[in-house]
Amino acid sequence: MKIVFYSPEGNAQPWLEEIGTTIPLAEVWEWTPTSADRQADYAVLWAPPMELFASQQRLKAVFNIGAGVDGVLKLNNLPPGVPIVRLNDAGMAVQMAEYVCYTLIRHTRNFDIYESHARNREWKRQPPIDRTAFPVGVMGLGNIGARVAQAVAAFEYPTFGWSCSEKTLPGVTSFAGPESMDAFLSGVRVLVCALPLTSATEGILNAGTLAKLQPNGYLINVARGRHLIENDLLAALDNGSLAGATLDVCREEPLPDIHPFWSHPKITITPHISAITLRAESVVQIADKIHALERGEAIDGIVETARGY
Amino acid sequence: MKIVFYSPEGNAQPWLEEIGTTIPLAEVWEWTPTSADRQADYAVLWAPPMELFASQQRLKAVFNIGAGVDGVLKLNNLPPGVPIVRLNDAGMAVQMAEYVCYTLIRHTRNFDIYESHARNREWKRQPPIDRTAFPVGVMGLGNIGARVAQAVAAFEYPTFGWSCSEKTLPGVTSFAGPESMDAFLSGVRVLVCALPLTSATEGILNAGTLAKLQPNGYLINVARGRHLIENDLLAALDNGSLAGATLDVCREEPLPDIHPFWSHPKITITPHISAITLRAESVVQIADKIHALERGEAIDGIVETARGY
Repeated sequence: MKIVFYSPEGNAQPWLEEIGTTIPLAEVWEWTPTSADRQADYAVLWAPPMELFASQQRLKAVFNIGAGVDGVLKLNNLPPGVPIVRLNDAGMAVQMAEYVCYTLIRHTRNFDIYESHARNREWKRQPPIDRTAFPVGVMGLGNIGARVAQAVAAFEYPTFGWSCSEKTLPGVTSFAGPESMDAFLSGVRVLVCALPLTSATEGILNAGTLAKLQPNGYLINVARGRHLIENDLLAALDNGSLAGATLDVCREEPLPDIHPFWSHPKITITPHISAITLRAESVVQIADKIHALERGEAIDGIVETARGY
Repeated sequence: MKIVFYSPEGNAQPWLEEIGTTIPLAEVWEWTPTSADRQADYAVLWAPPMELFASQQRLKAVFNIGAGVDGVLKLNNLPPGVPIVRLNDAGMAVQMAEYVCYTLIRHTRNFDIYESHARNREWKRQPPIDRTAFPVGVMGLGNIGARVAQAVAAFEYPTFGWSCSEKTLPGVTSFAGPESMDAFLSGVRVLVCALPLTSATEGILNAGTLAKLQPNGYLINVARGRHLIENDLLAALDNGSLAGATLDVCREEPLPDIHPFWSHPKITITPHISAITLRAESVVQIADKIHALERGEAIDGIVETARGY
């Protein structure tokens, strides 16, 4: 069996080795323009160029590594009928839950204030928080969003969720569909975006949605930079309707040096690390699915390309 | 019924009001040297002076507000036969769990590094963490320690617990008693102290215990300053066996201006805020217990003064 790998991140070698070790019978190589003619049965990839699909004629399945398949689906030459397969978690949901809880707790418990006091050797308590004053809303309740919401709920914050289709999660009050969006937002002070990027969700974090949050709102975006209208965030921070934002993703990554987000006192930037793909876990999962496909069995995680995730 | 209140923190008024509202039939006042002769049925207090017990002749029970009864038990004139009653959680365990998870995640996920990069507008990923490389050990598995351990385990860190008596907690590997202490410590990299302060636990965080941790250890103390031998911590940090420490408690509080902990690059100090007593929750609990005692019923939370918690 033949497997082609591609990632723009310059980390092909360890992936090739991991795949080679986990699927010893496979021939594995990195896709490059010069090796383009070599035909593979399976592609394991992240953010491929159009040329990859143009060159591959007999793929049986495409495995997307990392959370979010928008980088594949945006190409308009996907091989027809070939399943695009997502990772099922593979260690990313717990990382996202950690990231969001860390950011939430840092904000609600005033750890930033304590740090600045400590730099001045000041021992000064802030009043205790009332956690009912920090209702948290998670947009997107897939593998990742559901895990995030439940981690937040475990710390006894009132927790809400919003997703395209109805979801039931213990401890989480869930809303579904565009018509319930306003009701969801109006009960939320800390908004977490864990949505897939699709034509329906692009720009969903905008002046209108941010204005509907409770006063002193806070935004945490762990999804995609294109969910957010950047100028609308700046305006909401500057007019005081939002108290702050933590962004792990940006429209342009790396975030350019001159971008105003870097220096904004109410914005915290991290370099798209809320969940890093874990190679070993991912390759084990992909290997299992390849073996299942080879045996003619059904697999889960196949993307519905029409809905975009 | 008569209730006397005492706290050295200068916050008597809101407590008197809360108790007065919750137990409308009670006469409530603040203990002061000048009001000392006025006899109460119940005392609600934190860190009282010896004079309080010397002056009160007919107490039926003493309610300790806040986590840890060491500030009461250290007095050598406790009224004989009068129960000292702890709060059962009252919203403190979730705060401690938050504090410890925040501190743990900040350390393991390199948030301090990302903050310093962001100050320089640097978009630079750190390698993903292997959470099996950060086994966490919680000393003390009472209400608080148990909640802390389970919150840590939910983020999939290998989680260990150590306590005086055997405890069984889902997802936590537990050790009990002094004879199992070395086995516990040797499997732990991040050590969390949530012990009561007793003669058996004072100074338990010392050169010997810290040296038994795995390499690049990390200490989180949310219990009492006197659990820690301060110079032993400084030595362990300086000789590189510990990578860092976060201390919410110190031997002298407020931590003096000139104390070396403030400026140590590997030590983070917070002003004893890992769990702040929540007045409303505490008073409701105390009221329920007073009513039960008045009806001649048993209550839980009575401190075993011999063991110290």
